[in-house]
Amino acid sequence: MYPDGYSTFVAVEGISSVLEGKSRPTHFRGVTTIVTQLFHLTKPHRAFFGQKDVQQCVVVKRIVKDLHFDVEIIVAPIVRETDGLAMSSRNVYLSPQERSEATVLHAALCRAELLIGSGERNAAAIVTEMKNMIELKKSAAIDYIEIVNADSLAVLDRLQKGIPTLVVLAVRFGATRLIDNALMRVQ
Amino acid sequence: MYPDGYSTFVAVEGISSVLEGKSRPTHFRGVTTIVTQLFHLTKPHRAFFGQKDVQQCVVVKRIVKDLHFDVEIIVAPIVRETDGLAMSSRNVYLSPQERSEATVLHAALCRAELLIGSGERNAAAIVTEMKNMIELKKSAAIDYIEIVNADSLAVLDRLQKGIPTLVVLAVRFGATRLIDNALMRVQ
Repeated sequence: MYPDGYSTFVAVEGISSVLEGKSRPTHFRGVTTIVTQLFHLTKPHRAFFGQKDVQQCVVVKRIVKDLHFDVEIIVAPIVRETDGLAMSSRNVYLSPQERSEATVLHAALCRAELLIGSGERNAAAIVTEMKNMIELKKSAAIDYIEIVNADSLAVLDRLQKGIPTLVVLAVRFGATRLIDNALMRVQ
Repeated sequence: MYPDGYSTFVAVEGISSVLEGKSRPTHFRGVTTIVTQLFHLTKPHRAFFGQKDVQQCVVVKRIVKDLHFDVEIIVAPIVRETDGLAMSSRNVYLSPQERSEATVLHAALCRAELLIGSGERNAAAIVTEMKNMIELKKSAAIDYIEIVNADSLAVLDRLQKGIPTLVVLAVRFGATRLIDNALMRVQ
């Protein structure tokens, strides 16, 4: 994939530097470069990405739009265990206690949905309630919880109808870092 | 070409920063980005670029190789006026004296070819002879003259058989900046 003298990168400014990009500054440049290579080699009509890596979906949609790739991006929904934990190859690294406490992530996203459904429009108030829930768990250490525009990933202070709204979080349970997110309906 | 929220760039490290890239730090990033867009929109089997903008040719070949574009790059030779001056839309800006003096660029490239043909392998010696010729012209101000590997654009100290060798230069005549280059046979 990387011929001798390799030196080309496909990079998206702005949305690659926030959220996951903060702790992994070159990660999304790697994603967009390899995705470009794979699109050129396979020339797909459709490409499927998972909503769990929502920032990856946003970044890939951005290169498709900006660089006029002739491919349709389809985002597949998050698949969850029966107790709500988003499926991930990392879940096997959780100790039994961490595994049990990690269910708080989905619970906190559901709590956010409930708050928004009942009219809360102040992003900070929603994030604070989520933080309070998660911090009750002994093994949890929050990396970030943010409410952002689902297209631009710009942080939202106030939620409003018509702006695609995404709640996104990263939390460590012991040594295992988990991510989760949910799109919100704002009426 | 550039949708709302545009933020994607295709960039080549290293070879975009030397020669022309020194005075125009974002120029080749612009070239490689628009070429990517045009390749995606038109899906060509072959794309033609001119040898006169040799660094552009090298950079475009690099993205095609690195990103696995399914397109053949064909480099068309430099077309010259009868007195040797490389054709360029900029030539009309030259005063009669500058136009006359600008023929020294091709003469200097021919001199380099002659030196190499007669066995000179020291790049600095060749560049010095070219500089001396060009500096005799009253309106000329040299930006750069370099002997580089034609694929990597790495500066060569000694010429040797088997290394694709390019002599490349940029010189101002009054307010008009001209570029020219020639591939060299090193036996």
